[in-house]
Amino acid sequence: MSTLTVTPRTRLVRRPDRGSFDRATVHAILDEALICHVGFEVDGQPYVLPTVYVRIEEHLYVHGSVGSRMLRSLREGAQVCVTVTLLDGLVLARSAFHHSMNYRSVVLLGRAQEVTELPEKRRAFDALLEHIAPGRSREVRPADDLETRATTVLRLPIEEASAKIRTGPPIDDERDYALGCWAGVVPLALTAAQPIADPALPAAIPLPPSLQPYRRLR
Amino acid sequence: MSTLTVTPRTRLVRRPDRGSFDRATVHAILDEALICHVGFEVDGQPYVLPTVYVRIEEHLYVHGSVGSRMLRSLREGAQVCVTVTLLDGLVLARSAFHHSMNYRSVVLLGRAQEVTELPEKRRAFDALLEHIAPGRSREVRPADDLETRATTVLRLPIEEASAKIRTGPPIDDERDYALGCWAGVVPLALTAAQPIADPALPAAIPLPPSLQPYRRLR
Repeated sequence: MSTLTVTPRTRLVRRPDRGSFDRATVHAILDEALICHVGFEVDGQPYVLPTVYVRIEEHLYVHGSVGSRMLRSLREGAQVCVTVTLLDGLVLARSAFHHSMNYRSVVLLGRAQEVTELPEKRRAFDALLEHIAPGRSREVRPADDLETRATTVLRLPIEEASAKIRTGPPIDDERDYALGCWAGVVPLALTAAQPIADPALPAAIPLPPSLQPYRRLR
Repeated sequence: MSTLTVTPRTRLVRRPDRGSFDRATVHAILDEALICHVGFEVDGQPYVLPTVYVRIEEHLYVHGSVGSRMLRSLREGAQVCVTVTLLDGLVLARSAFHHSMNYRSVVLLGRAQEVTELPEKRRAFDALLEHIAPGRSREVRPADDLETRATTVLRLPIEEASAKIRTGPPIDDERDYALGCWAGVVPLALTAAQPIADPALPAAIPLPPSLQPYRRLR
């Protein structure tokens, strides 16, 4: 099925014209961004922490140390919100009120499921590396059993989710188009600079092809 | 006072060596980033939404439509978490396990306070514009009374907060330094491309100095 079901919790209250429940749109945003912000609650206090993640088919995976507060709180069954945001530009209008941002975001609601089977954990580790740098999982030493057991892996089904997208120039009030100030968009993108080798790296070891240059999909 | 008080909720469980409670460090991260992720809870479900913000002295301000779900939920007194993350690089290690990110983040916990006085709301609007593009608040039509009343402004005291920072090359296990794979850092930064004028903008209106080129502080 190519469209996510809208629920009262994912229905867009503000600017529903900017919303999308199309799976391909949600997947493309999740595949391009590098980090998500995970929201969970402990003793009535919401917490939001940044972390890497990866999508595998219809699930989103996050991981971390068995000792981390986030992963201890995101126990099996906890209500979670994972939000991914790509900032695409500043929208500079003629009035203060109509300033905005161009962005693509996904909000995913659900309950955390702990992944305990070692093969699925290893598959998630490989996918996390591939998400960050394609080809990386075949270049490095994979996690051994001790490292795999020391890492908690959680997954969320991509079921209750929505995307929200703003693109294009500012939309001003009619009365303001005659004003003399500049208006338009400053495009923004997360860009990579030249890789910096670990000082401990022998000079003979070359940059892998995936890093010359490094680019996020778009 | 230049150091924030550590509370059980902001004490860093994982990697306390990466933490900072120094006000200047927290402020610098808040002043450089453009958007935050706001966490709040409705009916036992956490939500995390991206939004612009600004720091004014010891408070962080967010705003939005009076009708927005986030701002209706972030009523006076609601427990909130605001997280700001700057992604500075991919940390590519020799083992899957030691891959990481270089980043600077701030987690701010507190209770939302609604700003109802018009002068403070207007001051927040100006500061929001200046946060996005310095000088902008003097170039555009300011919010009129109707727009000001249609906008909810909330502030959070910057009291219960911490910064977390990772910098530098990967740290591998001793056993892995002899492996032949490349290791190092791919620096990442949010960068601006050439501004795109609104198609409705008369050609005679020039780019303001603050946009040639646009840069985030660092």
